[in-house]
Order: sequence, then C-alpha cells, then structure tokens
Amino acid sequence: MLSLVDLLARRDAGTLTPAAAIGIAEAAIAAREPEVGALASLQADPFVPERGPLAGIAAGVKDIIDTADLPTGMGSPIYAGWRPRADAAIVMRLRALGAVPLAKTTTSPFASLDPTRTRNPRAPGRTPGGSSAGSAASVAAGMLPLALGTQTGGSVIRPAAYCGVAAIKPSFRLLPTVGVKTFSWALDTLGLFGAGIRDVARALALLADRPAIDLGASEPGRPRIGLVAQDFAGSPDPDMQAALAAAVRAAERAGASVRDLALPEPLPGAWARHGIIQDYEARQALAWEYASHRDALSEGLGARLDRAQDLTARDYDDARRHAHQARRALKDVFSDVDVLLTVSAPGRAPEGLASTGDPRFNRLWTLMGVPCVNLPVPGEGAPLGVQVIARFGDDGRALAAARMIEAALADPSR
Amino acid sequence: MLSLVDLLARRDAGTLTPAAAIGIAEAAIAAREPEVGALASLQADPFVPERGPLAGIAAGVKDIIDTADLPTGMGSPIYAGWRPRADAAIVMRLRALGAVPLAKTTTSPFASLDPTRTRNPRAPGRTPGGSSAGSAASVAAGMLPLALGTQTGGSVIRPAAYCGVAAIKPSFRLLPTVGVKTFSWALDTLGLFGAGIRDVARALALLADRPAIDLGASEPGRPRIGLVAQDFAGSPDPDMQAALAAAVRAAERAGASVRDLALPEPLPGAWARHGIIQDYEARQALAWEYASHRDALSEGLGARLDRAQDLTARDYDDARRHAHQARRALKDVFSDVDVLLTVSAPGRAPEGLASTGDPRFNRLWTLMGVPCVNLPVPGEGAPLGVQVIARFGDDGRALAAARMIEAALADPSR
Repeated sequence: MLSLVDLLARRDAGTLTPAAAIGIAEAAIAAREPEVGALASLQADPFVPERGPLAGIAAGVKDIIDTADLPTGMGSPIYAGWRPRADAAIVMRLRALGAVPLAKTTTSPFASLDPTRTRNPRAPGRTPGGSSAGSAASVAAGMLPLALGTQTGGSVIRPAAYCGVAAIKPSFRLLPTVGVKTFSWALDTLGLFGAGIRDVARALALLADRPAIDLGASEPGRPRIGLVAQDFAGSPDPDMQAALAAAVRAAERAGASVRDLALPEPLPGAWARHGIIQDYEARQALAWEYASHRDALSEGLGARLDRAQDLTARDYDDARRHAHQARRALKDVFSDVDVLLTVSAPGRAPEGLASTGDPRFNRLWTLMGVPCVNLPVPGEGAPLGVQVIARFGDDGRALAAARMIEAALADPSR
Repeated sequence: MLSLVDLLARRDAGTLTPAAAIGIAEAAIAAREPEVGALASLQADPFVPERGPLAGIAAGVKDIIDTADLPTGMGSPIYAGWRPRADAAIVMRLRALGAVPLAKTTTSPFASLDPTRTRNPRAPGRTPGGSSAGSAASVAAGMLPLALGTQTGGSVIRPAAYCGVAAIKPSFRLLPTVGVKTFSWALDTLGLFGAGIRDVARALALLADRPAIDLGASEPGRPRIGLVAQDFAGSPDPDMQAALAAAVRAAERAGASVRDLALPEPLPGAWARHGIIQDYEARQALAWEYASHRDALSEGLGARLDRAQDLTARDYDDARRHAHQARRALKDVFSDVDVLLTVSAPGRAPEGLASTGDPRFNRLWTLMGVPCVNLPVPGEGAPLGVQVIARFGDDGRALAAARMIEAALADPSR
C-alpha cells in the first residue's frame, strides 16, 4: 500500500517531488484499476501543487462528494454525469493543503447498502464492503495513499475492516459535510482511509486543522481500555473473536490495562433506534429522488425508502430522545476508561458481491458521534479489523491507542 | 395580505378552488412585483394539486433553496441561472402537502448581509431587511400567503419585523436543510413567513408533521413571560422600546404574567461568539466561491470572508464550548418562565437600501437553536416587531403565546 507519511517523508527528504508522488499513484491506478474497479472517474492531467503539507498526496473522493471538475454520480443512474457547481468543503480543504483530488471512488447508490462493482483487493471473491467501497479498495490496492468516505451506519469502518486498511470516522462534524450528498443529517460523517494508523492520523490532523490529533503530539501513556462485547448486536464470528483477543493481548503487551465493560441502557436502546433516525431523515433527504425516479433507485434503497414512508415524527422524536440520553450515559462510561475496544464487523468480508456486509457493530458509534478507528489485525486469509473508540472530540486519543496496538501487533515478540 | 388560514377556510368551504387560490397570488404578483422586486424567478404555468392540506397555497422559496424546475441563483452572479438536479427536502415537503412552490424570492448573496434590490412594501424608502428580503417583502405585499426563508444571524425575524409580517424561526433542524446552500451548518435554520401568527402556526405544523404545533392543539393558559432586555446587545430605539411595552401591556391584559429577566453568563459570552462560529464555518462552506470567484463576491461578504481566514480552530472550539454551556444555562432560565419576550430588531427598518439592518438582537437565539416568533406590533409609521421565544422543541408554546398577544394587540379594549 502507499503510505501517506512515507510519501511525505520522501518528499521532505528531497528524494521525491510532488509530481513524482502523484505519478506513483497514477501508475498504480493504471496497473490495478481494471481489476479492482474502485474508481468512478479519474482526473486525466491534474494540476499538482508544489507546496503544502499534503503536496504530492493523491486523494480519492467518494462519489457522493461534490467536485466541480469531475462528475459526481452518487453511485446512481439518476445522477449519471452530474456536474455540481462547486467543490465540497472537504475537497477545497484537500486542495488548500496541496493534495490532488485525483479520482472519485465508487459508492453504493446514495451511500446506502446496495453493492457496487468494486472488488476486494485483499480478499478475492469477497465484497469490499460499502458504502465507501471504492475508497477502501483503492487504498487497499495501493492505488491511493488517502481516500475520503462517509459513514451513516458503518460505511467507513466496515469496508476498512474488510479490505485490511486503517480508517477513522472522526467525531461528528469535525470534518465539514457541506457538499456531501445527505442521507441522514444527524448521522452522516466524513471519514478517512489510509495504509496505517499514522497515515490517517496525519491526514486528519491536517484536514481538521487540529495538530494535536497527530501522533506524537502527546504520549499515549498506559491507556485504560474497556473491552465492549456489544451483545445487543449479536455475536461476532469465531475468527473475529480471535482477532479481538489478539488485539487485547497486544494492547496488554504494550502496557495498556484492559477490562470487560458492559454498555448499560439507554445505550442498547439507542442502538436499536439508529435505523429510525437514519430512515426518517433519508426519506426527506431523498424525497426528490423517490418521488421523481423511484424506478431508477437500487433495489435495497427503494425498499428501504418504501418502508420509511410509514415512520412517524413521533417515532423519530422518541429515537432522538433515546440517542440524547445514550450520549450522556456514554460520557459516564468514559469516566473510567480512556478508550473502548470492540469489533469492526461481524467477521471477514462476506463471500460474493451481492451484499456489502452488516453494519450492526458500527451503528451505535455513528449515532453517538464518537471517533472510531479501524485497526487491521494481521493474520491469514481475508482481513479482520477491530475498532478503537474514544469520547467525543478525543480523536487523537483513539488514534494514539490504535497506533500503540498496531505497533504491538506488528511485533509479536515485544 | 394573503392569509394562509383564510385561503384554506374558503377552499374547505367550497368557495375557492386551489387553482383560483393560486390565481389570486399570481394576480397580486402581476400587480405588485414590478414595484417591490421580491422575486428572483416565477413559475409560469404551475401544476396545481387538487388535494392536500396546503392545496391552493402559493409559496415563495428563498433563492438559496434548491429547486429542480426553477433556477437557484443564491443571490450571486456566480450562480446566475444555476439549475440544481433535485428539489430541496423542504420544497418536496411543500409539494407533498399540495402547495405550489410558485416563485423563488430574492436573497442577499449566499444569505449574508449585503442588500438586494427588493423594496419594503410597508415602509417606502426603507430596507426590507435581509437576508430573506424577498420572502418577507412578498408576504408583506400580499403577493404570497407563505414564504420560506433562512436565518443564520437574524435573517428571518429581522426582515419580518421590518416588513410587518409574522414569522417563525423554528427549533434548530425541525425543518430539514437538505438542499439549502450552507453558510454555517451549526446555525442555518429554515423559517416561515405569513400574514399572521395563525398562518405560520398552521404552515409549520404541517411542514414539520407535528400537529401539536398548530394553535388550538393545547390551551395557552396564562403564560409566565420573562421580559429580556439583551443589554449585552445594546439598547433598542425608543420607538422599539415603546412597542415592546405595548406588547407587555397586551400580554398582561390577556392574562399573562410578565417579569424582567436578566440573562446571566455564559449567555452574553455566547452571544459575543456567534460570529466566530458563523464565520469559521462560512469560510469552509464557501471555500470554492472564495478561492475561485473572490472578485464576484458582494463587498460585505468578500470582506467578511477575508477576515474569517484569520480565525483558528481554537477560536472556534472555544466558541462552541461557550455555546454548549449557554444552551444548558438557558434551560435553567426556562424553568421559571414559559416564554421570553424581547425585541426583534433595534428599531424600525433603516432608511435607504444600502444596509439590511442589524441582527444583534437575533444572534443569541439562533445560536441557542430555540424557536423565535416575530409578532408585528400595530402602530403608525414603519413596522415594528417583537419576538416570542420558547425552549428548544417548544415551538407550539411560542406560537400560542404570540397569538395570545397578537389578539390582545388587535383589540385594545379587551
């Protein structure tokens, strides 16, 4: 994979120009894209800034994020060839930092659940996950060192786990969603994919203009980790349970303390109501598409919006009250631990391309708005990942703990 | 003015068809628009639904709100003739209820402070206010019974006061902002203009699908009213102070109890930081326009965005913390009173069209996300208005109290 911090180090050492760094990504795309199918469009002859903290970094932009110079297709025939007037705020932020928004990446239609054509570069024959399929796959295939995705249920952390790459879904609204197609305004969150934890930490610190998020800004110390089973979401596969156990052992080897932690009500109740908030808002956000182009919607999304017509404002207000109470309860949970550790998905990526997998272990954290980091757990076979979660606004702490475990996993002797 | 509830009552009595009701608005537009200049575009031959709770209601839509069948110009040459792909969520909601989005209404560029060409129908030679200038003026001129605006500082309540119409800025995100051009995502709030309080109450109850918001759903009783001076924002003009006193006397005649109420810190501190949140977000939301079309920005907005480049994430995070604490403090304020009463603007609309007036008495309430109703106070000369404010989510209570005072003001003998 292309490591963002490695590319920047080579650039800063004078051994790689920004243009040459972009050329590496372009060459990798030429070699891998025909097989992976992660890109919706590609900038043919991009302008490459010479300066800026991310000069030389080629970025993938999920195709529900507006770009003025590339089509924004939303993964749907309804928007085929659509050209927004302006770049989304996050795309302008990439440009301001010197990065090159080189390609749009494939997405489930309107960032919902239906699959794309994209293959999983790390697990042949299995889904790359979704909805940020192309962002996860393009990083996993070594085509891009950075890609933007969005998560409303589990659309960043799950595909990152399935494709074996690092990712962060930051605190809610830390990254601006202006110019990002809305599915659910209370949930939609921009996220980042990179080769490793250091890469997404550097990218997030720069994009959010919060240097303290980057690794090394403060010492991780000996974090107190709460191990969360999320029983309310069912059990993960045995493979995934083994990966979580390996992450726990690595954390302890690195000096962390780990203890089991149950999530009391109202947290399971909030988890159960995530879909009500999501679908009640999606019905409004996609009202034009549903009324004008129902037949052109993908099968799963169309059925979901059909069902959403029956939701009431009362259901929605009740679900929002539960979520509000759960956010307060989660603050109390964090009074005793620094971060939480749990699985990123039920198991390895499902076989075939018919499904993008199940976001049931991701929903609660999106609803809580707290930062989640996917940490790949090395091993045989298709990738597995666990997530490190911190309190709202504490993105740097989640990344520091994830990096600590990542380093310990890479060095089993330590 | 065209009253929404009166039009609906005539329709329900069988004396007015929906098409004839739309025709009334069209005729009024033909007569008044050349002089008022409140419309950015007009639907030539609109489809008029026969059924629906708002069938027969012609609505104005502020020109920063996306429409698929009319241009959305954002009040800026940068978007001249721009055609979004989809209708905004709130426009689809109008259609679902049977209303006709008949016209786009003028707006300050990107809903900022710079004036439009629109005249104040109730105060010749004075500004109609802004940024929702066309929405306020089109209702005041009797051209439309309903218009949508947005408020980020004081862009709904202030023009309503200047033009002598009723308006509500509802609880934050009660109405969906999907498809509304973002200035500040933490502040931008959709609002409604109508002839009187009953009109905006009916419209909001229907658009938000919360019947309990409408008048009559519960008895207003004898509300406890807190009279708020907002000293931190300076003093209103003597005329406005007299209007506020008249509203207090009317409220007391109607059975309310009124007492002075000071707003303690952190509320004044939050008021002072409103602009930091607004401008830090506007810098991101309008990054493409600023980078690509700086010379085409209006003078005030360009200067504002120039200054906003110096704001830091630290300034912004500090301002958000203050706002968070102020929202908690405001909950305590509402433990002793049902609604607050304060001025809607410093005074009558300023003379001339060079300024849209001052939102300093509006900013705090937008930042708090609480519902605000503008209530015109009858009298000689250019209009004056006061605002009735309730706790978050209590839009119906603000409207009920405003209606109670409105009725008492209309009948000084009572």
